[in-house]
Amino acid sequence: MNIKIIIRVSGLLMFVEGVAMLLALLVSFLYNEPDKAGIAISAAINIATGALIISLTRKVSKDIGKREGFIIVSLVWILFAFLGSLPYIFTGAIPNLTDAFFETMSGFTTTGASVLNNIESLPHGILFWRALTHWLGGMGIIVLSLAILPVFGIGGMQLYIAEVPGPTPDKISPRIRQTAAAMWLVYVLLTFIQTLLLWIGKMPLFDAICHAFATMATGGFSTKQASIAFWPSPYIQYVIILFMFLAGTNFTLTYFVLRGKFKPLLKDEEFKYYSIFVLFFTLLIFAGLIKWVPGGVEESFRNALFWVVSIITTTGFSTVDYLLWPPVLIIILFAVFFIGGSAGSTGGGLKVMRIVMLFKNGYYELKRMVHPNAVIPLKFNKHVVDSRIMNNVLAFAVLYMIIFGLSTVILMVVEPDLETAMGAVASSLGNIGPGLGKVGPMLNYSEIHPFGKWFLSFLMLLGRLELFTILVIFSPAFWKE
Amino acid sequence: MNIKIIIRVSGLLMFVEGVAMLLALLVSFLYNEPDKAGIAISAAINIATGALIISLTRKVSKDIGKREGFIIVSLVWILFAFLGSLPYIFTGAIPNLTDAFFETMSGFTTTGASVLNNIESLPHGILFWRALTHWLGGMGIIVLSLAILPVFGIGGMQLYIAEVPGPTPDKISPRIRQTAAAMWLVYVLLTFIQTLLLWIGKMPLFDAICHAFATMATGGFSTKQASIAFWPSPYIQYVIILFMFLAGTNFTLTYFVLRGKFKPLLKDEEFKYYSIFVLFFTLLIFAGLIKWVPGGVEESFRNALFWVVSIITTTGFSTVDYLLWPPVLIIILFAVFFIGGSAGSTGGGLKVMRIVMLFKNGYYELKRMVHPNAVIPLKFNKHVVDSRIMNNVLAFAVLYMIIFGLSTVILMVVEPDLETAMGAVASSLGNIGPGLGKVGPMLNYSEIHPFGKWFLSFLMLLGRLELFTILVIFSPAFWKE
Repeated sequence: MNIKIIIRVSGLLMFVEGVAMLLALLVSFLYNEPDKAGIAISAAINIATGALIISLTRKVSKDIGKREGFIIVSLVWILFAFLGSLPYIFTGAIPNLTDAFFETMSGFTTTGASVLNNIESLPHGILFWRALTHWLGGMGIIVLSLAILPVFGIGGMQLYIAEVPGPTPDKISPRIRQTAAAMWLVYVLLTFIQTLLLWIGKMPLFDAICHAFATMATGGFSTKQASIAFWPSPYIQYVIILFMFLAGTNFTLTYFVLRGKFKPLLKDEEFKYYSIFVLFFTLLIFAGLIKWVPGGVEESFRNALFWVVSIITTTGFSTVDYLLWPPVLIIILFAVFFIGGSAGSTGGGLKVMRIVMLFKNGYYELKRMVHPNAVIPLKFNKHVVDSRIMNNVLAFAVLYMIIFGLSTVILMVVEPDLETAMGAVASSLGNIGPGLGKVGPMLNYSEIHPFGKWFLSFLMLLGRLELFTILVIFSPAFWKE
Repeated sequence: MNIKIIIRVSGLLMFVEGVAMLLALLVSFLYNEPDKAGIAISAAINIATGALIISLTRKVSKDIGKREGFIIVSLVWILFAFLGSLPYIFTGAIPNLTDAFFETMSGFTTTGASVLNNIESLPHGILFWRALTHWLGGMGIIVLSLAILPVFGIGGMQLYIAEVPGPTPDKISPRIRQTAAAMWLVYVLLTFIQTLLLWIGKMPLFDAICHAFATMATGGFSTKQASIAFWPSPYIQYVIILFMFLAGTNFTLTYFVLRGKFKPLLKDEEFKYYSIFVLFFTLLIFAGLIKWVPGGVEESFRNALFWVVSIITTTGFSTVDYLLWPPVLIIILFAVFFIGGSAGSTGGGLKVMRIVMLFKNGYYELKRMVHPNAVIPLKFNKHVVDSRIMNNVLAFAVLYMIIFGLSTVILMVVEPDLETAMGAVASSLGNIGPGLGKVGPMLNYSEIHPFGKWFLSFLMLLGRLELFTILVIFSPAFWKE
């Protein structure tokens, strides 16, 4: 294990995070608010420590193997969450560590679960930092899911990027840089366009930027306590729906579309089912709202579409309180908690690709029963899926369910209400934000027991890094040899 | 498709069920109660129709292929449940078809969920018929899980019986008869011993027989409204715990033990984990009861052990009301709802073998991430598990969870309480009996909406026949060619 390179990368990360804080500091200066000092100190600590570590580790070996990779990936989020909570603590916005860490982990994992009860009272610098944690987290997840995890053989993403040489190489390849650069360009461009469109819809520029950050990262932090309900304008809500949908789409597909190539998008099986799922659940809930809940047709449709897209993309922005709907509609929406966005997007959850493969595999099992001697290969996007990848996808789904069940039991030790526990766990593990019961869309996580906050922060990380990345570090096999 | 042989087998089944009803009729005569007429008519209808069908189909081809096999297996339970409800209807014990069908399907699938509110008021003949549906269902499931399903390649049971030639042969082999005979001998013997032990413990002989029937089938119907709480005697409760545990053990292992061979039992991986699960959950709940619920040490231990064994074996007999426990203990017990008994037992649920293989596979996925080029085969009982079998087990688990979630949503249309819906679905699918909320252990299914009763009856059948057996009939692949 090359521990020195891990330390060096940590230093680099601290430096980067410190520089990011300078952006928040700039906002504080623009608005000339009293949060300047707290943010400045946080930035200084990060930059100075980071620079020191970098200079001390200048001569270490640059060998990053598989093990170092796993540790660095996990460390990125943990380190960012700890050091990123400094601005909250030093400005007094969130004075205690538990809450500040929860808010920051929720930010960087693009979950969007909050402990804040009076968001409007916070200075702009802090609000900007809060939105920025989402945006940086989203950037991180793009490079992770499109470039790093496939090399590690996690999550069946090898299926997606044909150029990836499979799970063989033990070094992180240089093409990460190219892929990441192209995807980040798409990410930045979409963020810019959304900001513009929101601003045209009369959302103040500051709020437009923060909401674009939170949307593209499928995060969900708003600058308003009421979230998107603060802007009842259908235009604004539809713009946000559109960009949530885009943020939950595989960024490589969007990249091709932006370059004028529509074929990959139209031929993509995951995008097809992603659209079908959105349509199906929207119509189902729309029908229920028309039948049981008073409201206009357009409004009911918009509310159904907004929530389905907000949940399936794991953004978690809210408009109306879905806990006021009839129970069966709530539980239909809760089913969407487990789907998640597309692979290669900033969305969390199980991912549409996996869900589709699970259903296909189930159906193929029936086929195999009827024709036991026939070889019936499972295909995805017209490629035969290797049985090792299918096993990985199945194991992931089973593990996801086991972790969901087990974590609900654990959380119930401090939060005995079943719906609250189930909602908080599913929401954290899927990086969504709102849940059920005490953590419904009109409430937040401030009343959750401190143990629960740390535990849910861990689940956010576990879900964000596709379970295996974290779990492998806890396995004896990882540390042997 | 050889439809004529399916009709002939149906006739045989009706005849057998009619003869079984004669046993209940005998009990009516012994007690000289007014249910004689109703049971006699039911028996007559079954025997006459059955005999007529048999005589009319004497010359049909005896070819039973895979397809015919799947249909017959499903038909057995549906036919038995419909015709088996006649005694309830004709005696007026359960006058309406929905309730009578639910009670009978619950009996034959060894679920033990009841709609009866005044069990003690029923005549002995009906009570005996009710217990007998369990016992016959248990007999059916033994032959199904040990002899028929392995031939169809369902459920990874091929692992268990080395002599089974794998999923190749398209005919049901004659060794089914031998296996079934040996296992039924064990079943009858254990039923007899348990009856004797309960009778020694001062339970009236009639109740002892009915409870032995319900125990060995892991059913759960009692002759008393209060279930086992009617007999506070620790001796009786421990006897029932012991025999529930035995009924949840693979019958082939018990067969070897009865022949003096202990090695297979001690070497069996599933039995090891089955015992570990029982011990682990009992101690966990015991600790919780000691901490939070008033009661003596022995009593708390017995209540914890009773419920864990009753649920893991999917029997569903009850003593104390677990819904009065702290929520976290309830939900720990609810986790046990998904484990189920051993493969080759009368227990339902996912089965211990599958749970163990899921955990092993999850851990092996981590190992494979660390050593991507190594071939790391998964072993169970010292045999390498074929990747096709592992895929089947994984697909089964995923399907089980999807069906659980989807069914909860569907049931909530008529039963909006989440806990009630989750509890009823998990309990029916796992063939357990009691659930949560409105269907807790001190209540029953009488208040469930009629649609819910039919739907839950379907889930009992789906769970009892290991999902695939039913689902394959609905797949287009099954009907093609």
